[in-house]
Amino acid sequence: MTKSENGKYTIGLLQLASSPDVNDNLKKAVSWTEKAAKEGAQIVCLPELYRSQYFCQKEDSKLFDLAETIPGTSTEAFQKTAEDFNISVIIPVFEKRAAGVYHNSAVVIDAGGEILGIYRKMHIPDDPAYYEKYYFAPGDVGFRTFKTRFGKIGTLICWDQWYPEGARLTALRGAEVLFYPTAIGWHPKEKERYGKAQKESWITIQRSHAVANGVYVASANRIGFEKPVPEQDGIIFWGSSFICDPQGVVLSQASEDKEEILLAEVNLDHIENIRRNWPFLRDRRIDAYDGIAKRFLDE
Amino acid sequence: MTKSENGKYTIGLLQLASSPDVNDNLKKAVSWTEKAAKEGAQIVCLPELYRSQYFCQKEDSKLFDLAETIPGTSTEAFQKTAEDFNISVIIPVFEKRAAGVYHNSAVVIDAGGEILGIYRKMHIPDDPAYYEKYYFAPGDVGFRTFKTRFGKIGTLICWDQWYPEGARLTALRGAEVLFYPTAIGWHPKEKERYGKAQKESWITIQRSHAVANGVYVASANRIGFEKPVPEQDGIIFWGSSFICDPQGVVLSQASEDKEEILLAEVNLDHIENIRRNWPFLRDRRIDAYDGIAKRFLDE
Repeated sequence: MTKSENGKYTIGLLQLASSPDVNDNLKKAVSWTEKAAKEGAQIVCLPELYRSQYFCQKEDSKLFDLAETIPGTSTEAFQKTAEDFNISVIIPVFEKRAAGVYHNSAVVIDAGGEILGIYRKMHIPDDPAYYEKYYFAPGDVGFRTFKTRFGKIGTLICWDQWYPEGARLTALRGAEVLFYPTAIGWHPKEKERYGKAQKESWITIQRSHAVANGVYVASANRIGFEKPVPEQDGIIFWGSSFICDPQGVVLSQASEDKEEILLAEVNLDHIENIRRNWPFLRDRRIDAYDGIAKRFLDE
Repeated sequence: MTKSENGKYTIGLLQLASSPDVNDNLKKAVSWTEKAAKEGAQIVCLPELYRSQYFCQKEDSKLFDLAETIPGTSTEAFQKTAEDFNISVIIPVFEKRAAGVYHNSAVVIDAGGEILGIYRKMHIPDDPAYYEKYYFAPGDVGFRTFKTRFGKIGTLICWDQWYPEGARLTALRGAEVLFYPTAIGWHPKEKERYGKAQKESWITIQRSHAVANGVYVASANRIGFEKPVPEQDGIIFWGSSFICDPQGVVLSQASEDKEEILLAEVNLDHIENIRRNWPFLRDRRIDAYDGIAKRFLDE
C-alpha cells in the first residue's frame, strides 16, 4: 500500500533564490526537487517564476525573451524528474502562449511525467517594482484542481493569495491542498517600518484560506535581494514559505533568508475531522452571495 | 469640528459576562455602554445575545420566551442611551419577528436615538451545545451597511465570521468597520488539547477579513462559564475580543476572562492609504467568481 492509498501523502516546498542565469536556476531547481523526493516529498512545488530573477521590477520588451513554451525546457526537465523519482511537481513558468500572449503560469506534472494541466495566474498585480500587468495577460482557465497520483490539489499563484474567492473556488472543486508559488518581498525602504505587518498580513490571509475551506495551504516563496535596475531600490524577498493544516495551524515554516526544503504530511482523515467539527461548508448562504461578482456595490 | 468630520472616530467593544437575570444583563450593558461613551467611544458594540446566558446549549421551546420584539425593551433602553450620550450602538437581540419566526439579530441605533436598521444573522451554526438552527431562522435581509453619524459600518454576527463572502459583501457596500458581536467558547473537555488552535483560527479568519477588504474589524465576545444543562459540560466563553486595522494589525485585545471595554480609533485616511498600497479590490476577477454561489463544484 502506498501512502496515498492510506489517505496520506507528503508535500514539499522549495524555498530558493534565483540567480541571473536561467540555466543555473533550472539545474538547481531540478537538483533540489530530487533532494526533496529523496527526503520523502511526493508532490513538490517551486517558487513563482523560479527560472529567473524577478524581472517585473521594470517594463522592458526584451524581457519577454525569458518566456518559454509549455511544453518546453522547464516541463521537459521536470517531466523526467517526475518519472525518475515518481513524484508530482508544480512548476511555475513564464509562459509564452503565442506572439504577444504571455502568462504567469504553473504546470502540474504527475508522477510518471504526464502533464496534468496548466493554471494561469488569475489576479495580476501592478505596483511599483511589481509591474506584472505589463508582462502577463490575466489567466483564462479559471480556478482548477488537478488529480495527481497522490491527491487532488489546486495551485494558485502569489497575488491570488489575497483573494478569498480564488481559494474558495479551488476548494469547492475538491482541492485538498492549495499551493501558492510566490515571489513577494519588501521594498528596502519600507522594511523596517512596515515589514513585520506586511509579512504577517501575508501569512494571516493564507492561513485564513485553510480555515475557511478546511484545506492544507502550502506557500513557496523565493529569497534573496534582487536589484536589477540600478536607480531603483530592489526587492528583499522575504522567504518564510510555510505549510499549514486545515485549521490554519502552521506545520512547518522556513527562514527569511535561506534556501530550504519544507515537508509536511497531508492527511485526508484530518481534513474530514476538521470539516466535520467546523462545518463551515454546510452553512454557506449560496442564495445570498450574488453581489460578489460586482466590482463594488454603490449605495 | 467633530472627530468624524475629520475622518476619524472611536469605536468601543464591550466584553461582558451574562447572568441568568435578563434585566440585570440589560442594566449592566447600559451602564457599561455609558462608561464606554465617557471614555470616548462613539460607536459601541455589545456581545451577541447579550441579554441572556447562551440558551442554545439545549433545545427547549420555553426558551423562545427570551425573545423580544424590535422595537422592544432593549432598543428602547439603548435609544435613550444613544440620545443621552450622542453615541451609536449595536445591540444584538434575540428577535421575535412573528409567532414562530425568530432571528439572531443586531439593531443599529444612531447617535440621537434613531433606529437605522436591523441585521439578521445569515449563517446559522448547529453543533453540539450550539443548537442555533433550532432557534433562529436564517437572516433574510442580506449583508448590510449602516450610515451612522460617525461613519459607515457593517455588522455581522458570530458564525458569519467564518465566511469571507459575508465580510466581502459588507465591505463592497462601503463598510469602514465590520463588527462581529459573538458568543464563542471552548467545550471544557476540548480546551486543553484544541483550545489554542481553535481560538487562533477565530482570530486569524477575522483578521483576514480586514486584510482582504481593507477595513477595520471589531469582534465583541462574551466571557464566563455557562452550564445550563446539568448533564452537559457547558461552555467556557473565551473573551479575547479585539479590534484590528485594515492591514490586520491588532490594535487592542481583551483578556480571556475579564469584563472589559476596548477602544480604538478608526481613521479613514489609514483605510485609503492601505487600500492604495495594497490594491486588492482593484484586481478582483469578477468575471470568474460565478461558482461561489454553488454548494460544491463536483468534478
